[in-house]
Amino acid sequence: MKTLQDYIDKLNALNFKDMYEGDFFLTWEKTDDEIEAVFTVADALRYLREHNISTKVFESGLGISLFRDNSTRTRFSFASACNLLGLEVQDLDEGKSQIAHGETVRETTNMISFMADVIGIRDDMYIGKGNKYMHAVVDAVTQGNKDGVLEQKPTLVNLQCDIDHPTQAMADMLHIIHEFGGVENLKGKKIAMTWAYSPSYGKPLSVPQGVIGLMTRFGMDVVLAHPEGYDIFPEVEEVAAANAAKSGGSYKKVATMEEAFKDADIVYPKSWAPFAAMEKRTDLYAQGDQAGIDALEKELLAQNAQHKDWSCTEEMMSLTKDGKALYLHCLPADISGVSCKEGEVDGSVFDRYRTPLYKEASFKPYIIAAMIFLAKFADPAALLKQLEEKGTPRVMK
Amino acid sequence: MKTLQDYIDKLNALNFKDMYEGDFFLTWEKTDDEIEAVFTVADALRYLREHNISTKVFESGLGISLFRDNSTRTRFSFASACNLLGLEVQDLDEGKSQIAHGETVRETTNMISFMADVIGIRDDMYIGKGNKYMHAVVDAVTQGNKDGVLEQKPTLVNLQCDIDHPTQAMADMLHIIHEFGGVENLKGKKIAMTWAYSPSYGKPLSVPQGVIGLMTRFGMDVVLAHPEGYDIFPEVEEVAAANAAKSGGSYKKVATMEEAFKDADIVYPKSWAPFAAMEKRTDLYAQGDQAGIDALEKELLAQNAQHKDWSCTEEMMSLTKDGKALYLHCLPADISGVSCKEGEVDGSVFDRYRTPLYKEASFKPYIIAAMIFLAKFADPAALLKQLEEKGTPRVMK
Amino acid sequence: MKTLQDYIDKLNALNFKDMYEGDFFLTWEKTDDEIEAVFTVADALRYLREHNISTKVFESGLGISLFRDNSTRTRFSFASACNLLGLEVQDLDEGKSQIAHGETVRETTNMISFMADVIGIRDDMYIGKGNKYMHAVVDAVTQGNKDGVLEQKPTLVNLQCDIDHPTQAMADMLHIIHEFGGVENLKGKKIAMTWAYSPSYGKPLSVPQGVIGLMTRFGMDVVLAHPEGYDIFPEVEEVAAANAAKSGGSYKKVATMEEAFKDADIVYPKSWAPFAAMEKRTDLYAQGDQAGIDALEKELLAQNAQHKDWSCTEEMMSLTKDGKALYLHCLPADISGVSCKEGEVDGSVFDRYRTPLYKEASFKPYIIAAMIFLAKFADPAALLKQLEEKGTPRVMK
Repeated sequence: MKTLQDYIDKLNALNFKDMYEGDFFLTWEKTDDEIEAVFTVADALRYLREHNISTKVFESGLGISLFRDNSTRTRFSFASACNLLGLEVQDLDEGKSQIAHGETVRETTNMISFMADVIGIRDDMYIGKGNKYMHAVVDAVTQGNKDGVLEQKPTLVNLQCDIDHPTQAMADMLHIIHEFGGVENLKGKKIAMTWAYSPSYGKPLSVPQGVIGLMTRFGMDVVLAHPEGYDIFPEVEEVAAANAAKSGGSYKKVATMEEAFKDADIVYPKSWAPFAAMEKRTDLYAQGDQAGIDALEKELLAQNAQHKDWSCTEEMMSLTKDGKALYLHCLPADISGVSCKEGEVDGSVFDRYRTPLYKEASFKPYIIAAMIFLAKFADPAALLKQLEEKGTPRVMK
Repeated sequence: MKTLQDYIDKLNALNFKDMYEGDFFLTWEKTDDEIEAVFTVADALRYLREHNISTKVFESGLGISLFRDNSTRTRFSFASACNLLGLEVQDLDEGKSQIAHGETVRETTNMISFMADVIGIRDDMYIGKGNKYMHAVVDAVTQGNKDGVLEQKPTLVNLQCDIDHPTQAMADMLHIIHEFGGVENLKGKKIAMTWAYSPSYGKPLSVPQGVIGLMTRFGMDVVLAHPEGYDIFPEVEEVAAANAAKSGGSYKKVATMEEAFKDADIVYPKSWAPFAAMEKRTDLYAQGDQAGIDALEKELLAQNAQHKDWSCTEEMMSLTKDGKALYLHCLPADISGVSCKEGEVDGSVFDRYRTPLYKEASFKPYIIAAMIFLAKFADPAALLKQLEEKGTPRVMK
Repeated sequence: MKTLQDYIDKLNALNFKDMYEGDFFLTWEKTDDEIEAVFTVADALRYLREHNISTKVFESGLGISLFRDNSTRTRFSFASACNLLGLEVQDLDEGKSQIAHGETVRETTNMISFMADVIGIRDDMYIGKGNKYMHAVVDAVTQGNKDGVLEQKPTLVNLQCDIDHPTQAMADMLHIIHEFGGVENLKGKKIAMTWAYSPSYGKPLSVPQGVIGLMTRFGMDVVLAHPEGYDIFPEVEEVAAANAAKSGGSYKKVATMEEAFKDADIVYPKSWAPFAAMEKRTDLYAQGDQAGIDALEKELLAQNAQHKDWSCTEEMMSLTKDGKALYLHCLPADISGVSCKEGEVDGSVFDRYRTPLYKEASFKPYIIAAMIFLAKFADPAALLKQLEEKGTPRVMK
């Protein structure tokens, strides 16, 4: 793409009108056109910023963030996206707030949303809870808007739930599209989403689920591999299979990392916790059973340790297509000999892919901004044109 | 009101010139015209926002917030108000800051105010301290400005002190005005501010005090009711009595919730702690006497539990005018069977009034913004006109 | 100076082209012209703000702050500077972030910098670490920008490291320049940087080091004095000596506060910890030796207590030039009889200099803003002119 008009033309060929005043929960709830619209707007916003054209479409308004797990990159990606569009981030810190005082979600959500245009939530710790919580939030603001309490309905951006991590998977995918020179070049490409050994505990399932739930839509051969006992949500596997069938690609599960890596064009080796264990942990937390949680952690670490051979070593990489598969990771990775003794990936492999890995991450702020843009504006293509014509510099010269 | 000009005409008929470069501590330190100016500017700012007209009157500048108690709604209301006017919120977190290192209020206040246009403070925990602290802050910035240290004097907005909660009481009042179709319809209406049972401890007195200190100014019959031993500041009762005499309404105290609710047009049942106990607690905190604080908490909870019959039940509501009094609460309420076993209000009553309660809360950001607007601009009416004529969209279309 | 053009003319006579796209680590890494450019731009930005002209040169962009030590004034100075230029501050709180999860500096720095124009860091606790960390951050973003990961290279502002505290020393210096009516009036003036007794522990060395490293550049007679055992970095003393030789001033060390204060035009009495003890503490922290840290603290406090006569008393002040030396402090000071029993300065001395002390502090936001301005814009003089001509009011009227 060379000019903004190219992005605009592409948008004009897509049907994404249902995104207006909507929300973003799971990628597989969106049509192919809608997914492509997100990629296109993300690229267009990047194009404008790279050409020093302001994309500040809000003169005022808040972007509320709620993180129920530690976060650096997603927190900054959300802050960057909001700032890029003109919204000021206000963190809802449940420690400081009165949610702890027994308020219901409905009430708190309305109370903080009087001038909010966006709510971004990360809630990935507990199986069966995060996505539900996000729906409760959206139901609350939708009702609040209908009842005349809220002048606008803030749009929700899922910054990671128990089921999907859409901003991550879409940033990963947009990176793939750029690396392969366009979505049209992906048919028949093999991508391996595999478990990898980590000495740490309880990593969320939403990354592998998000990846297979999205990557199966582009005609690629998607392979999932993990040791026995590390199953992911079966419902998401069904989504992946259905996607693959529809897109003309394939989805299958294999039993070893070697088989997954064999001739792969893209590999995504990454640790996660077993679904069943995460369900158990959710119950233990609900019961406040700290002894049980500690015992489970010990057990899971021991289980992980049986699979140290699941590591993205140089040897493993040599099995891939020409030994040169594109290596992906959501970061931070557990790097053998760097951040831990034995981990997900060899230091030399990681080093070789550092720049592409960082570029992969650089798409996330634009993906988030695009989700907001498509939810808040009736005619995003016209608005992009308007921004270009206005031509306010992002930074004065 | 139909057009912005109506608000402007109303403003032009009021005398509020002393608000310019002033501060907002207590509602009863303001004239009737000044109180009406706040309501009018709040409505005008809301009108502009609802018509998608930016009210960003600051290109840069900080709004400093200092919360000495947990807060969600007031924190977000302040952030929303600042953002609406173009100010960026910067929290002064005493945990993180060097106030803990023995700095004096005067020094810290100047150090953080070099580019501050507003300071919002919530300090309601200790009797005889919060309001005094706010005055110390204002004295410091006034002197700093006079001495050429500060280029501007930030305006103080009292976000709740030990005496008054002006942004809450004024949001409540503006809600009443809207519900009753204008301040001119309030003469002779009965409003009951009553204590209600809560299983929690030490709720501030500033809400009932703020309510009787303000609501007595509009010709209404204001009734205060609480169990024996739950007295509020006597000075505020004197203010209420004087207000009522002047406004042609009335102020009286009754001994039961039933009597207060009888034929009331508006009810505000809400828990608070006894004044004497709060004074005692303030001393115990000053002495660092944790055992004493714990004993006092126990004692107060036991005292509360003797008055579980002070609850806004369906039966109690049926005593009000046509059984349909407007139910108010500053939120969050202790809802029987929802957030606690027995509390301030029945779940079914709360449910029926949820939308009006949320609307009541929605006025707070505008009340805060109006207080800032009136303190920072010499001619607010002309500025509102200018904003309308400029017509910068809040959100691009 | 009377008009903006005066500042612009001054800038046009200076050579500071190497500051563009650079960073600010240590004052002695900058040429005299570059130092003067910072002062000039700081004054020019202040001039514009005082004339209600917006200096918002960024329409969007983040200013990232990372504080590894408590801070009020520097935190607010950085926030004020960013806000003045149009950047939104986003704190990197290592407690909340995944740095704790073993991420490398390189990775985290890139991950948070996709839309960052500035990074401000305070890292002064550990000898040999803070400045190194800042260089690692700059190396990371420089490489990230070169590799196409970052569209812009954020500029680093050293908000205090183990070696220098450039924003403090330059704010102090600009205050001196204003008090003495111009840098041309400083030749031959005597300034005493002396240790002073404090009942607290482990105050950083970067203030005295920053002061002697900078103040020796203006032809002044700079005297350092401290009790035996309170040496500062020898490398910085070498810098000071070389500066003095070059500027036509002098640098010497004397053994008593009295000798240092004798006929001084300016005094800066301030506590700090011995260099050797700070090195030891750094090692103890690295080893996680809490018992050792506690023992060291006890030892240092006892050592401090032997030097209670090093205090800026009225008697000591009477030794200075006409008894009227300009008293400086970075604040907060340990004030005898106010914030502690015996401390760095008498209450009466501090009181007399309060307004100048607050003014001294008021330069810091402008110094920081000037450092950013000079690093981000190729032609700062032209940009200042453009801002004046545009004439957007900071606050509408």
